[in-house]
Amino acid sequence: MDNSNDFYRSRQGRKCETVERPDPVVWGEGGSPLAPEQSKHYDKEGFLFLESLLTPAEVDEFLVEARRLAGGEGVEPEDLVREPDSDVVRSVFRIHKTSSIYDRLVRDPRLLGPAQQLLGGQVYIHQSRINLKPGFLGKEFYWHSDFETWHIEDGLPLPRALSISVLLSDNNEFNGPVMVMPGSQKLYVRTVGETPKDHYRASLRKQEVGVPSTDALTDLVHRFGLVAPKGPSGSILLFDCNLIHGSAGNISPYPRHSAFFVFNSMENLPVEPFTGQAPRPSFLAERDPVPLEPVAPIRSSIPAAPHA
Amino acid sequence: MDNSNDFYRSRQGRKCETVERPDPVVWGEGGSPLAPEQSKHYDKEGFLFLESLLTPAEVDEFLVEARRLAGGEGVEPEDLVREPDSDVVRSVFRIHKTSSIYDRLVRDPRLLGPAQQLLGGQVYIHQSRINLKPGFLGKEFYWHSDFETWHIEDGLPLPRALSISVLLSDNNEFNGPVMVMPGSQKLYVRTVGETPKDHYRASLRKQEVGVPSTDALTDLVHRFGLVAPKGPSGSILLFDCNLIHGSAGNISPYPRHSAFFVFNSMENLPVEPFTGQAPRPSFLAERDPVPLEPVAPIRSSIPAAPHA
Repeated sequence: MDNSNDFYRSRQGRKCETVERPDPVVWGEGGSPLAPEQSKHYDKEGFLFLESLLTPAEVDEFLVEARRLAGGEGVEPEDLVREPDSDVVRSVFRIHKTSSIYDRLVRDPRLLGPAQQLLGGQVYIHQSRINLKPGFLGKEFYWHSDFETWHIEDGLPLPRALSISVLLSDNNEFNGPVMVMPGSQKLYVRTVGETPKDHYRASLRKQEVGVPSTDALTDLVHRFGLVAPKGPSGSILLFDCNLIHGSAGNISPYPRHSAFFVFNSMENLPVEPFTGQAPRPSFLAERDPVPLEPVAPIRSSIPAAPHA
Repeated sequence: MDNSNDFYRSRQGRKCETVERPDPVVWGEGGSPLAPEQSKHYDKEGFLFLESLLTPAEVDEFLVEARRLAGGEGVEPEDLVREPDSDVVRSVFRIHKTSSIYDRLVRDPRLLGPAQQLLGGQVYIHQSRINLKPGFLGKEFYWHSDFETWHIEDGLPLPRALSISVLLSDNNEFNGPVMVMPGSQKLYVRTVGETPKDHYRASLRKQEVGVPSTDALTDLVHRFGLVAPKGPSGSILLFDCNLIHGSAGNISPYPRHSAFFVFNSMENLPVEPFTGQAPRPSFLAERDPVPLEPVAPIRSSIPAAPHA
């Protein structure tokens, strides 16, 4: 397949190349529930951290459910991904389909509202998962843009998607919180290296293809610096699909659990993957999108202040 | 060898056991250059962080020398330890013997003064090294007490030793700074597991024997919490030989270089190792101690405040 004219081509050339993103970060004008300054912060920095959006009681409920799913109850074996060095479950996928309370969460106006507002209209869940990052054993996630993979391996045409990470544990400086390069969402890094067949089997454990070169990362960090949004469980982190992020390993005794949802615009439905290979399985990349309906009216504002 | 009456026995039973340390942390009364509150902080927390003790010009000089040594100039091959997954040099040992400027540094009153004061009298260097923790690739050091190894494998009788880490890069929340459990130096963890022959060859790359169990670590962290002293290059971290510490991997582009010196009391000279095995080689554990003489008079005070 010749994708040499695709702007978001990657894994083709022999040189890692950083280009300006021609598409917007915020796709909707105004709206609610995010205030104009929250939307502006998201546009500029590529993320928004909303502290303590969920109550402790809600967090408890989601944690109990997460443990039930990680135990394999009601999920397919392929929904479970384990740590590279052990049998400990690292992620459970497709939770919005196998769990009624996570299905409800993605349609909760506190999550769905900002997603619809920032992406400008109807959205669906491209991927959902719980990340269970245990104490002592949690391994690193190296630097990457999610969109690079979702474009190349899943066929999402444009960066009109965002992630919402719901913190189910306190995030602190010790337990390997997500680190982001604020502003990096406005560039796009065309990485080097061929995509191996069934790349997802390896990349879910440790991603080695589709990652920017160390030179590119060094340039990005000099330009944008790093931020690690931290806060109590129940906080949420919204971030653009093209924001460069990663997280260090967690040797601390504190676990770092989160639920993770990818909202994609209904105007950005997947096409054939740009690898020329078969699409990734549906537990990783939805290919039969149904727009999300809110479980309750979307409120007119989100009270929490954006992360400084 | 029967060491069942040795208070600091370890790696013998089948249960990890935490006991109160009967020996002091601060071995000298009063004195200088540390102020009484600095000495008290060290006693209680097990560490002292002295910000910007060396000038930027000094740091530059030590970094240039570090790179020269890491390149193999004037050092023995065994002085060099590489990263577990690559050929990148992680540590250079014996630097106070192969480098005149590091020899001078260990006799600098800013380092030697506090060491003599806290250990109560004459000291020598049990071990010296540069740690070069590169950006992107720096691997974790798991939780451990240095004294456990120095007692069991090197034969240091009592915890009358301390480490001084000289920061040669800025330490921030992103580049895997040392994390300590403040107060843990007052307990001693008898670990489980036999010491393999020539354990140091593996343990310098990744320590797996002589580390506390996850249950013991969880208890310690609940009791003491975690602190990661951070600050600009030129700062120094003094810490007790029995303080539990570790550091996460460094996926950030920022390197984390440091020079590291173990000062041991001349009244705590090594005996036969408690493993029953041959002592570790002299690049790791000095067996021919000569007391350090200061290069200049020891000042009557250290101006920097202890880390909060």
